[in-house]
Amino acid sequence: MSILREQALACVQASRTMAALDTAAKRRLLHAMADQLLFRQGDILQANASDMQAAMAKGTAGAMLDRLRLDPERLQAIAAAVRHVASLEDPVGQVTRREQRADGLRIERQRVPLGVIAMIYEARPNVTADAAALCLYAGNGVILRGGSEAVHSNTAIALALGQALQAQGLDPQAILLIEDLRRETMLELLQLVDIVDLAIPRGGEGLIRFVAEHARVPVIKHYKGVCHLFVDADADQRLALDLLIDGKTSRPGVCNALETLLVDARVAPEFLPKAAAALQARGVRMRGDVASRALVPVLEEATEADYAAEYLDLIIAIRVVEGVDAAIEHIRRHGSDHTEVIASRNPVSIERFIAGLRSAVVMVNASSRFSDGGELGLGAEIGISTTRLHAYGPMGAESLTIERYVVQGTGQTRHPVDA
Amino acid sequence: MSILREQALACVQASRTMAALDTAAKRRLLHAMADQLLFRQGDILQANASDMQAAMAKGTAGAMLDRLRLDPERLQAIAAAVRHVASLEDPVGQVTRREQRADGLRIERQRVPLGVIAMIYEARPNVTADAAALCLYAGNGVILRGGSEAVHSNTAIALALGQALQAQGLDPQAILLIEDLRRETMLELLQLVDIVDLAIPRGGEGLIRFVAEHARVPVIKHYKGVCHLFVDADADQRLALDLLIDGKTSRPGVCNALETLLVDARVAPEFLPKAAAALQARGVRMRGDVASRALVPVLEEATEADYAAEYLDLIIAIRVVEGVDAAIEHIRRHGSDHTEVIASRNPVSIERFIAGLRSAVVMVNASSRFSDGGELGLGAEIGISTTRLHAYGPMGAESLTIERYVVQGTGQTRHPVDA
Repeated sequence: MSILREQALACVQASRTMAALDTAAKRRLLHAMADQLLFRQGDILQANASDMQAAMAKGTAGAMLDRLRLDPERLQAIAAAVRHVASLEDPVGQVTRREQRADGLRIERQRVPLGVIAMIYEARPNVTADAAALCLYAGNGVILRGGSEAVHSNTAIALALGQALQAQGLDPQAILLIEDLRRETMLELLQLVDIVDLAIPRGGEGLIRFVAEHARVPVIKHYKGVCHLFVDADADQRLALDLLIDGKTSRPGVCNALETLLVDARVAPEFLPKAAAALQARGVRMRGDVASRALVPVLEEATEADYAAEYLDLIIAIRVVEGVDAAIEHIRRHGSDHTEVIASRNPVSIERFIAGLRSAVVMVNASSRFSDGGELGLGAEIGISTTRLHAYGPMGAESLTIERYVVQGTGQTRHPVDA
Repeated sequence: MSILREQALACVQASRTMAALDTAAKRRLLHAMADQLLFRQGDILQANASDMQAAMAKGTAGAMLDRLRLDPERLQAIAAAVRHVASLEDPVGQVTRREQRADGLRIERQRVPLGVIAMIYEARPNVTADAAALCLYAGNGVILRGGSEAVHSNTAIALALGQALQAQGLDPQAILLIEDLRRETMLELLQLVDIVDLAIPRGGEGLIRFVAEHARVPVIKHYKGVCHLFVDADADQRLALDLLIDGKTSRPGVCNALETLLVDARVAPEFLPKAAAALQARGVRMRGDVASRALVPVLEEATEADYAAEYLDLIIAIRVVEGVDAAIEHIRRHGSDHTEVIASRNPVSIERFIAGLRSAVVMVNASSRFSDGGELGLGAEIGISTTRLHAYGPMGAESLTIERYVVQGTGQTRHPVDA
């Protein structure tokens, strides 16, 4: 048996003790985890300094360095996020349906943990603590496979979390941080069909495609967020402009930022020049189709690739469309099933837009930036799914559980039994 | 583009019209489907006769022949099952959660169809109609890949269903029956990640393993049902005997039949001889461990393989265990996460049994044979899942949908927008 398999089986074993914990015990555990993160701040920041040094020596880009970097304030925030998870509703044991048959059989559907969840991620060391907290709170074991660039930080954080488990008299193997970062070990992890109930990759599209293509275990993922704003002919244009600016510029590097603006041809002559001026004033580069360039000459030319692009940058693709149906067609063709926004005062357009799209989140007169577990009431988020199975959109603690049946009877049989 | 891909894309297109239908239109469609099945009875039975002839020429076993065979009565039952689906609650559009934030943002979770579902199955031609009815009723398109032994029957049934779609002015390509039954075409189907939202294999373990091992699309499945009955020391033994006989003998060839009997050592001397006599009287062969054979000499010797076997036959494996914890350990080790039964009057044992097991269905003092979508209130069943994701246990129409977010605002932005 490989070392990975042996460790993973120990995680399965430990996950059973997590599944059996009551809410109060899990809350105590999460607070102990937060305490340990702060108590071991010196070790964690020192480990992070090693990672930063190695990354700088390799000439890593600034944005990546920023994601990797920890400081006392960020560590405080990580600990606070763990405590926040402990304040959420515990999904485990919830009865989601209850029915009594005429013959007295009582049928319940009850939430139970998934089992063992593998998180595969890059760069940000905070995912180590966030994912562990959410998975454990939902009664699961967790296998963490972080990026090599954060290996020291992740190890120090996982050590702190493991000490908290131990201090609570729990099996520290409920959190398994994989230290062997070779690709073949990741491949082995993705084949452990009898151990891993769900793999969640988080990071760049390359990592996610690698996981999706090689996994035999179930995977929930999103490749990218190509979020659209459609400005309907009946939109409140002032409101539409707010949604555009917030969606594109408030944090361009995240998956719920806007990437494409679609404008109804009937209002494009009025709306597009205002929109372009506002975007230009905020340093946004714009790429448009023929019709939009005719209205706003400053636009660069958009190619087909622009309409599929997740820029994660101050760039936006623009197209003029003939009404809501054309907007739906554009999004169906180029979209990523993540989040789409309509600005409109027309209930018919709004209804068509909602019904015509299969994206995980549809926003009506609200910013795409609300497409986030925290904002949508999940409290915390383990990822966003554009996989149309199990969970769709932002995933919280509940997405780390599954409903099973518990049936209580008094000797009922399906057929009469002769003595 | 391959023919399969072209057809599958047409199914995606047609699935959108299914997604947009209201409940009344879907009910009309399902009744039209049932009508067509009866109207075309002559063609369907003739096609089935060809399949039967070919199967008999190949020397197919009797049980398989029986599964393949249609007659007017069975076709009536298939049509009735389609009408029954039309009487179920429509899951599409259901709002499962509704929340209003302090800033006025209204967040809803709403059930939408999965998209396109691929059913891969063997032998029974009724699956063609059952699966099509459930998938379409839940607003999906369906791709049907039946077994070669039923090819004529399936084609005739699918033709009837397609005519019903056409008669209702709907796109018949919402039901795609794959007529090219070569293995490489099935492999191609299992790779259509941008088209197939879910594959559900139904049939023998070999088929299911083939699908699970080769699919890149998400798969929900169950390999087998190794269902256990644990007779606790505090069981009502008369009741336990009823559950044993119903579970083992009322229909041994199905996945919710009992395969293993575990008896607490404290009551085994009293219970096992009675149980063995009752089973023997009903023609059940018994294989036991040393302890059970000491009590009932008529038992054959059980090997490790017997405890993992899904006999689907009048055979049962028996073991004497030291209390509920040993029963849980046995089931964890040998079980298939399908359905487990405890016979007990002791609330502590019952609670331990429920909490200690992760099976999809746990029955307390009720027969394993109730582990079925129809019996558990789903109305109809597309399959049973022991995949711990999306659906667990019997799957009905709701399992063919997913919840998405619809958020309505009045111009809310995540950050204030300066004019």
